[in-house]
Amino acid sequence: MTATLNQPTPVAASRLLGLGAARGEQIVDNEQICQWIDSSDEWIRQRTGIQTRHRAGEDVSVVDLSTEAATEALEAAGLQGSDLDAVLVSTVTHPYATPSAAADLAHRLGATPAAAFDISAACAGYCYGIAQADAMVRSGLARHVLVVGVEKLSDFIDNHERSISFLLGDGAGAAVVGPADEPGISASITGSDGEKWGAVSMNASLLPLRDAVAEVRRTGDAAALTETEKTLWPTLRQDGQTVFRWAVWEMAKVAQRTLDEAGISAEDLVAFVPHQANMRIIDELAKQLGLPEHVKIGRDIADAGNSSAASIPLATHRLLKEHPELSGGLSLQIGFGAGLVYGAQVVRLP
Amino acid sequence: MTATLNQPTPVAASRLLGLGAARGEQIVDNEQICQWIDSSDEWIRQRTGIQTRHRAGEDVSVVDLSTEAATEALEAAGLQGSDLDAVLVSTVTHPYATPSAAADLAHRLGATPAAAFDISAACAGYCYGIAQADAMVRSGLARHVLVVGVEKLSDFIDNHERSISFLLGDGAGAAVVGPADEPGISASITGSDGEKWGAVSMNASLLPLRDAVAEVRRTGDAAALTETEKTLWPTLRQDGQTVFRWAVWEMAKVAQRTLDEAGISAEDLVAFVPHQANMRIIDELAKQLGLPEHVKIGRDIADAGNSSAASIPLATHRLLKEHPELSGGLSLQIGFGAGLVYGAQVVRLP
Ligand SMILES: CC(C)(COP(=O)(O)OP(=O)(O)OC[C@H]1O[C@@H](n2cnc3c(N)ncnc32)[C@H](O)[C@@H]1OP(=O)(O)O)[C@@H](O)C(=O)NCCC(=O)NCCS
Ligand SMILES: CC(C)(COP(=O)(O)OP(=O)(O)OC[C@H]1O[C@@H](n2cnc3c(N)ncnc32)[C@H](O)[C@@H]1OP(=O)(O)O)[C@@H](O)C(=O)NCCC(=O)NCCS
Repeated sequence: MTATLNQPTPVAASRLLGLGAARGEQIVDNEQICQWIDSSDEWIRQRTGIQTRHRAGEDVSVVDLSTEAATEALEAAGLQGSDLDAVLVSTVTHPYATPSAAADLAHRLGATPAAAFDISAACAGYCYGIAQADAMVRSGLARHVLVVGVEKLSDFIDNHERSISFLLGDGAGAAVVGPADEPGISASITGSDGEKWGAVSMNASLLPLRDAVAEVRRTGDAAALTETEKTLWPTLRQDGQTVFRWAVWEMAKVAQRTLDEAGISAEDLVAFVPHQANMRIIDELAKQLGLPEHVKIGRDIADAGNSSAASIPLATHRLLKEHPELSGGLSLQIGFGAGLVYGAQVVRLP
Repeated sequence: MTATLNQPTPVAASRLLGLGAARGEQIVDNEQICQWIDSSDEWIRQRTGIQTRHRAGEDVSVVDLSTEAATEALEAAGLQGSDLDAVLVSTVTHPYATPSAAADLAHRLGATPAAAFDISAACAGYCYGIAQADAMVRSGLARHVLVVGVEKLSDFIDNHERSISFLLGDGAGAAVVGPADEPGISASITGSDGEKWGAVSMNASLLPLRDAVAEVRRTGDAAALTETEKTLWPTLRQDGQTVFRWAVWEMAKVAQRTLDEAGISAEDLVAFVPHQANMRIIDELAKQLGLPEHVKIGRDIADAGNSSAASIPLATHRLLKEHPELSGGLSLQIGFGAGLVYGAQVVRLP
């Protein structure tokens, strides 16, 4: 009973070592969207800032997108798959209850026997993943952790649905996190408000679909699936105004708290990369944070739409391509979405 | 560019503060199983050691089971929901792509605004969760973390399927992890072998089902669902022998390595709680580890079946009820399953 347990040796700090990106190759413009819903190019631009969104081809899976982004991130970090101790995939669109996308990804990257698991935290998934990776590295649980935010939302939407589907795109962003001498990831702020669990959600559980499918197979009669108002195949929907208000008011506070806990001010930032949910939300957050002119703001949404867990690494990756001088500077990132959940931290750009 | 980032203050150690359990209230015996598959009570007992498994009622959800287990764990820890900084739910049977079960659970426990996310690591999910919680507490990211392993496998199996369904049960186990002066959780060993991604898996992606359902609704004809060999509704299946061999050979090594990294020997344990997959696997692992007589072995499987992510906390909870004198002693726990993935650590029992 007196034996003491060894723990892993903590490490001083962690940081991002490299980023990678993969975008769905089909570009869907507002005109195409308006064939499916009663809307207009003008309305969508004005209310959301979105002009196009990327969608992946039918034969491209969440793991395919992840592999592409992760390969670039590893290369940028100067590492190989076999250097990874853990592979974290934040996603809500892997179409298998089990096994995880991460286990397959780890294998494809040559990272076996790295730890592998998926994280479900919707549009906050990437920031949750970075928080976990930071905790894993600093606590000594892992040395190099791959964090992927990936979604193939086009598989889980109904194009004729008007509350959210027109916003969404597919893609993957990846980051390699590893040990550092100086802090490269600030104290993460992660949280939830489950009272608003229904504000962005699937429109149904999978279980009524299961029962209807069983009934159709048992009876040979399509009625159980056709004589219902609901499609039963679960797709995403939202109460846009609830999410909008929450994002603008509550997330501005979380973003400010993230700066405070990091011990820095908006002046110290070179970039601000919020989840790409709506250009008006991005603008409003930037305004409330009082960001100085020199801070570059991630606005990937205009071309890429909202790719949930992938949106922040994709937008960051693009900022770094367009402004390589940002490398080494501090970026405030904040993800928020279904749960409702949020995650934020300041990272030093690789 | 010279601003430095604050990180959370690390904490010396973490430990389990309390455990809780919830079991499906329907007890399914082997006789009932043999109405669905060609098997026998004798075969099932001999090959698996399972006599009954617990299943939850139709109206009981993964979050309901989690709430019951978590409430007990919080009480055992002398804490309230509002003391939690993070809620982690390891599950593969939450029937919504998003939001997470964790966000709902956090709300129900009064834990808002705790961080909340689900982990997908199948039967290793609980041990992955404990590894994450340990990293979160020691790195200072969170002070009190709730880890729940929960499955309602009865929703994701086909009772007539003969490779795995007869093994499975429903339940939830919960642990509260918090700061400690002395290490209460050893260096976690987590890993994967994604080359065997298909060894235990769903028998189909959700996407062909989606397409078939759309076809039935479009045509009003049941054919797309009925004129196929496959049910299309994805359910679990496995290659039992592959999993069995891997579990016995590879997991014995992982279990030994976990002891080695913890800096203890089998003599120092009071309990051994492997994932409850098969009594023969449990016996074989115990034999290979050369466990001394005094070490109590979790054998919950006989009554409870295999409840995936829930099996280790359920079996541990039961051992502590039956042998309260184990409290304060060291338990080796090892989870393994679909991915294939594994996670293990030595914990000091609360
Ligand atoms: C979805 C969103 C763009 C809708 O914009 P909005 O300004 O809130 O729109 P409202 O729902 O208040 O509807 C305003 C009007 O636009 C109409 N409208 C709604 N959706 C529309 C669409 N897709 N196209 C055209 N018109 C639409 C409404 O019918 C309403 O018309 P009315 O004034 O004649 O009644 C906005 O709420 C939003 O971006 N929310 C947050 C998005 C988000 O972050 N979601 C992802 C979670 S991470
Ligand atoms: C599933 C499991 C019990 C099957 O036992 P097994 O001894 O490997 O059985 P096999 O698949 O080799 O089949 C042996 C015989 O039993 C039969 N059999 C298989 N499943 C059966 C069942 N459910 N009932 C009765 N007979 C069965 C086979 O048809 C075969 O018959 P044959 O010898 O006449 O050809 C065992 O492989 C196992 O427990 N695997 C690991 C389980 C596990 O951990 N899975 C969860 C992942 S965490």
